[in-house]
Amino acid sequence: MARQSMREEIVDAAIDQFHTYGFNAAGVKDITDAAGVPKGSFYNHFESKEALAVIALERYGSTRRLAELAETSVPALRRLREHFAFLREENESRDYTRGCLIGDFGNEISDHSPVIREAVEASLRTWAAAIAGAIADGQREGTIRASIDPNITARFIIAAWEGSLTTMRAERTSTALDEFFSVVFDSLLA
Amino acid sequence: MARQSMREEIVDAAIDQFHTYGFNAAGVKDITDAAGVPKGSFYNHFESKEALAVIALERYGSTRRLAELAETSVPALRRLREHFAFLREENESRDYTRGCLIGDFGNEISDHSPVIREAVEASLRTWAAAIAGAIADGQREGTIRASIDPNITARFIIAAWEGSLTTMRAERTSTALDEFFSVVFDSLLA
Repeated sequence: MARQSMREEIVDAAIDQFHTYGFNAAGVKDITDAAGVPKGSFYNHFESKEALAVIALERYGSTRRLAELAETSVPALRRLREHFAFLREENESRDYTRGCLIGDFGNEISDHSPVIREAVEASLRTWAAAIAGAIADGQREGTIRASIDPNITARFIIAAWEGSLTTMRAERTSTALDEFFSVVFDSLLA
Repeated sequence: MARQSMREEIVDAAIDQFHTYGFNAAGVKDITDAAGVPKGSFYNHFESKEALAVIALERYGSTRRLAELAETSVPALRRLREHFAFLREENESRDYTRGCLIGDFGNEISDHSPVIREAVEASLRTWAAAIAGAIADGQREGTIRASIDPNITARFIIAAWEGSLTTMRAERTSTALDEFFSVVFDSLLA
């Protein structure tokens, strides 16, 4: 089977359409057109656009390289820097548009769809746990300030990252991301 | 003139509809219905929904109590705490939904509307200047860490606030806002 299944193609197209246009602006027909499949095939695979969004968010989460945050062969502070450097490069390659699909759904749809809200919550929880683990490792290594709470700090850093993406999109420059790195690594964790 | 003009009623209704449903999900008819005016009257007052969004964002910005951040009769750290306490209470009164209209537009529409993107950028700039001023005052008073850059810190704090609202909406609790206060006031500024 060289060709992806139709279902997989729809999920990939959905990530791209939702990320580019947002949940409301990306219609089922836009998604099936982008996937190159007939619109009528959509409901053979997904109950609703909402159900597809939950699956798209899970797949998006699996591309965030969270496993690398637990790579104990690499110093913890370097793991954290490399994680956000990866996210930063993604945003640079997109000319500072799109931001993060988790934050996009969180802002646009959390209030209106309980299932998407829960999926956003789960994505944030998984991400925070991975960052908190690296922070705790850095504290044991003596490279991260011992007095901070790893869980609270991890959640705060994610919030700061998501908000920095909002500023980045408004400014279409890297300035907000530069500032994120400087405050987080030179002040908050140091 | 006891009654607001039709134009003013449309702007107020637009703030509420955009904030509740988002830019794409709030249609012109939803807005004129909420304002209690005929849909046909909309284009007598506004060129487009996009043009209305820019005016709505400016009016929303004027309700952010930024002048209080410059009230030099009040200690700077107290001004900053009271500012975010005001924003926090707003969010609590809405059961942790809606977030901030600046961030909502920034995430949903910045990539697609140059005029809304510029309005978001201007809103963030005005807000950051007000916070940076209070931080600089606190440094002069000796209550805020002297080594931090007021402008970078102000922009970072706004980013962290906006991202904390995303987490808040996903969790429908005050936890992310509590953590914002604890990291910003006990660690970043202290």
